[in-house]
Amino acid sequence: MAVLVQTEHPTGLAEPKVLGKMVNGTKQDSSHQDNSIDSNGIQQATPSVHQGTEVEHKDIEEDNQAVLALRNLIFDMCNQNGGGHGGSALGMAAIGVALYKHIMRYNPSDPSWFDRDRFVLSNGHCAMFLYALNHLTGFDDWTMEELKGYGSAKTNGYTTLCHAHPEIEIPGIEVTTGPLGQGIANAVGLAIASKNLAARFNLPGFDLVQSRIYCMTGDGCLMEGVALESISLAGHLQLDNLVLIYDNNQITCDGPLDWINTEDVNSKMRACGWNVLEIADGSYDVQTIVTALKYAKTLSGKPTFVNIKTVIGIGTTVAGTAKAHHGKFDMESVMHSKELAGLDSTETHVIPDTALQYFRERKTHGEALQRRWENMVDHHSSEFGEAAAEFAQRRSGTLGTEYARLLENVDAKTFTGQATREVNGSLIEMVWPICRALCGGGADLVNSNKVYYDEADVFHPLTSFTGRYVRYGIREHAMASISNGLAAYSPGTFLPITATFFMFYIYAAPGVRMGALSHLQVIHFATHDSFAEGQNGPTHQPVELDSLYRAMPNLQYIRPCDAEEVIGAWLIALGSRQTPSIISLGRDPVGHVPNTDRHKVAKGAYVVVEKPQAQLTLVSCGTNLHYVVQAGEALSKDGVATRVVSAPCFDLFDKQDEEYRNQIFPLDGTPIVSVEEYVATTWARYTTASIGMTSYGYSASNPSNYDRFGLDSAGISTKIKGYLGSIEGKNARMVGWKQL
Amino acid sequence: MAVLVQTEHPTGLAEPKVLGKMVNGTKQDSSHQDNSIDSNGIQQATPSVHQGTEVEHKDIEEDNQAVLALRNLIFDMCNQNGGGHGGSALGMAAIGVALYKHIMRYNPSDPSWFDRDRFVLSNGHCAMFLYALNHLTGFDDWTMEELKGYGSAKTNGYTTLCHAHPEIEIPGIEVTTGPLGQGIANAVGLAIASKNLAARFNLPGFDLVQSRIYCMTGDGCLMEGVALESISLAGHLQLDNLVLIYDNNQITCDGPLDWINTEDVNSKMRACGWNVLEIADGSYDVQTIVTALKYAKTLSGKPTFVNIKTVIGIGTTVAGTAKAHHGKFDMESVMHSKELAGLDSTETHVIPDTALQYFRERKTHGEALQRRWENMVDHHSSEFGEAAAEFAQRRSGTLGTEYARLLENVDAKTFTGQATREVNGSLIEMVWPICRALCGGGADLVNSNKVYYDEADVFHPLTSFTGRYVRYGIREHAMASISNGLAAYSPGTFLPITATFFMFYIYAAPGVRMGALSHLQVIHFATHDSFAEGQNGPTHQPVELDSLYRAMPNLQYIRPCDAEEVIGAWLIALGSRQTPSIISLGRDPVGHVPNTDRHKVAKGAYVVVEKPQAQLTLVSCGTNLHYVVQAGEALSKDGVATRVVSAPCFDLFDKQDEEYRNQIFPLDGTPIVSVEEYVATTWARYTTASIGMTSYGYSASNPSNYDRFGLDSAGISTKIKGYLGSIEGKNARMVGWKQL
Repeated sequence: MAVLVQTEHPTGLAEPKVLGKMVNGTKQDSSHQDNSIDSNGIQQATPSVHQGTEVEHKDIEEDNQAVLALRNLIFDMCNQNGGGHGGSALGMAAIGVALYKHIMRYNPSDPSWFDRDRFVLSNGHCAMFLYALNHLTGFDDWTMEELKGYGSAKTNGYTTLCHAHPEIEIPGIEVTTGPLGQGIANAVGLAIASKNLAARFNLPGFDLVQSRIYCMTGDGCLMEGVALESISLAGHLQLDNLVLIYDNNQITCDGPLDWINTEDVNSKMRACGWNVLEIADGSYDVQTIVTALKYAKTLSGKPTFVNIKTVIGIGTTVAGTAKAHHGKFDMESVMHSKELAGLDSTETHVIPDTALQYFRERKTHGEALQRRWENMVDHHSSEFGEAAAEFAQRRSGTLGTEYARLLENVDAKTFTGQATREVNGSLIEMVWPICRALCGGGADLVNSNKVYYDEADVFHPLTSFTGRYVRYGIREHAMASISNGLAAYSPGTFLPITATFFMFYIYAAPGVRMGALSHLQVIHFATHDSFAEGQNGPTHQPVELDSLYRAMPNLQYIRPCDAEEVIGAWLIALGSRQTPSIISLGRDPVGHVPNTDRHKVAKGAYVVVEKPQAQLTLVSCGTNLHYVVQAGEALSKDGVATRVVSAPCFDLFDKQDEEYRNQIFPLDGTPIVSVEEYVATTWARYTTASIGMTSYGYSASNPSNYDRFGLDSAGISTKIKGYLGSIEGKNARMVGWKQL
Repeated sequence: MAVLVQTEHPTGLAEPKVLGKMVNGTKQDSSHQDNSIDSNGIQQATPSVHQGTEVEHKDIEEDNQAVLALRNLIFDMCNQNGGGHGGSALGMAAIGVALYKHIMRYNPSDPSWFDRDRFVLSNGHCAMFLYALNHLTGFDDWTMEELKGYGSAKTNGYTTLCHAHPEIEIPGIEVTTGPLGQGIANAVGLAIASKNLAARFNLPGFDLVQSRIYCMTGDGCLMEGVALESISLAGHLQLDNLVLIYDNNQITCDGPLDWINTEDVNSKMRACGWNVLEIADGSYDVQTIVTALKYAKTLSGKPTFVNIKTVIGIGTTVAGTAKAHHGKFDMESVMHSKELAGLDSTETHVIPDTALQYFRERKTHGEALQRRWENMVDHHSSEFGEAAAEFAQRRSGTLGTEYARLLENVDAKTFTGQATREVNGSLIEMVWPICRALCGGGADLVNSNKVYYDEADVFHPLTSFTGRYVRYGIREHAMASISNGLAAYSPGTFLPITATFFMFYIYAAPGVRMGALSHLQVIHFATHDSFAEGQNGPTHQPVELDSLYRAMPNLQYIRPCDAEEVIGAWLIALGSRQTPSIISLGRDPVGHVPNTDRHKVAKGAYVVVEKPQAQLTLVSCGTNLHYVVQAGEALSKDGVATRVVSAPCFDLFDKQDEEYRNQIFPLDGTPIVSVEEYVATTWARYTTASIGMTSYGYSASNPSNYDRFGLDSAGISTKIKGYLGSIEGKNARMVGWKQL
């Protein structure tokens, strides 16, 4: 029997109703005998009868056969490789059929149709659920041959489709997921994107943007901090275009969920400002799921959480247990399932014709949907030229060239005496109006980050969602991961920014990584990037975090020393359409560095003080460089001819040709010493010695810290002299790299 | 008027009662005029009348004067430095008086008394709240002279007490806090510790462990994922010795809380399994706070959340606004406050005698408490020799020597053919019974992590909390930060372990960092540390995370290659009493590495294959080393005499003397090449070239990935030959470091 329970009426008028068996937080028998009742296999499925709407028996039978076809394909994909995360995928099959057959607006023939609904599989380990659906509905490039290759590289060879987790590069996959919780944050970003575009561009009769976001989660994502942060923000922002579907199978890798989590998830979601719907039999009951999701479309003012009870590994001997989470399934169950579908039980990868037609009808349906939308867009263009041009530009994802002209013409001298965070704030103010893809904001430190914004430009119900500035609250991790969702909405339509202290990008690191891995352009403004961040103490002073970000592939960590270089950093960050950047900024004004050049930032490193017959090269960046220039002058005066290199970005320097690199860091055996208030790791590639940190910072004033750690100009000079004395004129390369 | 509202009776019998004004999630006027009503200054304070108990007017007056004395000291500490996070500290003064005068069991004369209640300031930026209270109650070493020095290093000089955030090194500070959310997780760890000790050692008449944990949080911590994870776990674990006190001032750095968070925090906490109490006037009403906290002591089966409405910057012109969050306060308000206390308004740092006596009475009170407890312990010793000896041993924090004898005698050959994660699992099984300080567990992947445990040894209400194995759920960040709390309970009493895939230590990084910064011994077991973690794909394959951990001060990242080195890693990790370690472990069995030595792991790097007149040194670790040994053999056969170094730990190697270091990595210009499936950052210190990753991994089989990235023995040999060819017999140091 189908049971759809709305546990609280969105108007608040009705009394809460809950099904005893369904409520989380109720003590459950950890042997999970409940599940075994439901898990006797597919043959036990009772055709669903949905309460309140009339659904033909024939339709229900078709749905059931489609669920069976999907499960059988999942069985085959699992067993072809001797394993995989098949259990949850089996349990979610009815949800998949409801979404892909009855609910979602999409076009398998054009997976990147701009106004499609987006589906995010936050429980990314169930990738085969998504891959099987993409094949069944006929997404471009999803052949059965490829599905047969799925995972086959486990034993040998390379295949085109060996993705244990969904990867954004593949048509029909919205975001790369797998690390738990990330997908929920991504979905929140996608929902903000859609909501903002709709607010900006929709007009009566022209619903140009209707895209809704469906996100699937398991028990795991809902325990992750990044998801909890995102859920809280989504409720606050009243993202009613977002539906989070909970595959509530009460099983995790290690055992029953109530070993580790007994909270009342429905009440928690409601407390966070979400509608909550419950479905008692999500393993079979396609039509009740459909009804719930259709009902969710009618609810406004809140995102919706659909708590759907399923049985992991349904129809197999391990149903309802942690053993179903990963691994092969017993052949008897698999063969029985094939027989139920009227298939030869010994054959694999066969889809019954009726089931295939059932799914493939979505292709023509989706093509018609997209055509209607394109007609509307054409009509809109002819009526609203200017708005239409802007909408087209946003869809195209191009940033244009105006920002570059502006940045090239900014006079850096107007920022003399300002900290780089302040310069950056001014650049945001200049570029924000002309780069309408820019969106995002900070994590409750924007007065310190110097990210200025207009109250009217805040993304919020009170501004009808037209604003581009997002107040993320004290949710750094969610901020980064939501940004990935914004960037993934459609290439270039949004260019998200984030901001907090550099140190707190350690909270955001998993999100920053996923953006870099997924080739999503996001610009992170990391201020207070030094122990000049004095009195906040070592908890706030980064000394090792640069090592992570400088090592992270496809992430540009740029540490400019002055206004000129901040402008250069912006040119690079805005121009890198497939690469996120961190622009690392200082809290306090620093001394002068000569010859900085916005265009040379693109080289990664370049000479700012040249000296003929130099006996020493000093190299540094950011807030340290001005001390190095001073130290270089002092050393030169003392007879050690010292040249100075500014190195704002290793990622860019490593891309230069060998000749250029050897010119910057000569191989003649003269000493090359880096100076930075971080632990020197990456520097050792280029230097013969490094002055840097070997400990955490200290809670004390800015100048006293530079003195304490020997990183002011006097300290640098002293250490350099000690080093030069210790190598006694020897070839610096031959005495080995030194930590000074 | 005092209002204590218990919003839901813990037995579930009473109806929820809420005060309209107090409920979060209710739309509030963002101009916060509510607050301005409350914020006309201290002179408006009405003596509290507590409902239901009789409190003398005199007592209330004393409390109020104590609150005033605390606020006046906070004013002086703020203004002596021209700023600081004074606003919340002012608002929390009554809470501070309630806790430190009326509720907490502690002895200012012995801040490390084993059975004290623990106080954690999760909103660590309010450090001066804690520092002022420590001075007033007479904690050892908290002189007024030091308080005057607080923050003075802002302009110059070094002082002994210039801590913007609480730091564990200081007597009377339980944990270092500041990065938001961490303190709540620490408090959960402390509560687990106390609960477990009580379960293990208390007997009728001998409540040896009664310690309760009080944690203060602001609006910020409650948005952080790490806190939300920890709160969920604390409710699940029914930690009824934990009280989380919410300084609900509805103001964050950037503005009113309802800009960023409008959730119903009370309902959310209840959904997570917490009792919720509310106090309407937390700025003045000491006695109601006392009553609530006393009541909380009577509640069992759940932790308690006390939601206390306060006014930030109370008694000043910026009260109730974000301007009160940080900065100086107007002198008129400050002077008026001094006058109310009967002080000369122009003087600073003066405590009225009566107020000082009021607080200092806690010293004699605390000394008596501790004496009674010590008498009980003595009595217990004479009655229960064996249990008492164990209790004494746990308090002493020593691990003894039995573990070392055991590890030294383990025959590594018994593990031949096993992956290092499996070896590690066996070692856990061996050491766990004899090292009773060991506690903790994994984040829902322990079957994969190979962390074995006994059901009866799980820390859970069902085992009456006697178990040491903690099921953290899918909460990696909380796991690390809770571990810090466990370790901080009393030095060495608990030695926490954590476990998950290495990649997911990027989620846990902020917690791992805080442990390293705080000198807390925690052992992290990071399995699946390679792209041999094949079919899970690049989302699960670490390539850059080692760079963070190898740079992190006071964190030992150890990557053993075989059973022998895993044993060595254990000896180091267990023996490092002030330093956390990550033991980085492989998923799959790998080939043989000769001459590994558990004792030489302590050297950080050592030779495993020596060659006379070597022309090449190869260095590697972990799952890569066996391929390197094979490649070395092949190269030697081909005429390039190749020696091989195992380098399991850079942190340890850097501590060796120069002679040893130069012996391992010779400075004669012969090539030294590292091989690792990570981005080579730290390696460049020691090598002339590195074979490593420059991109993310790939979703494919284990062997195919080593082939794909040229990191199997054939790939290594090919790259080395190319490198040797390119340098054409030149001095390798003089051609510069190469990425191969």
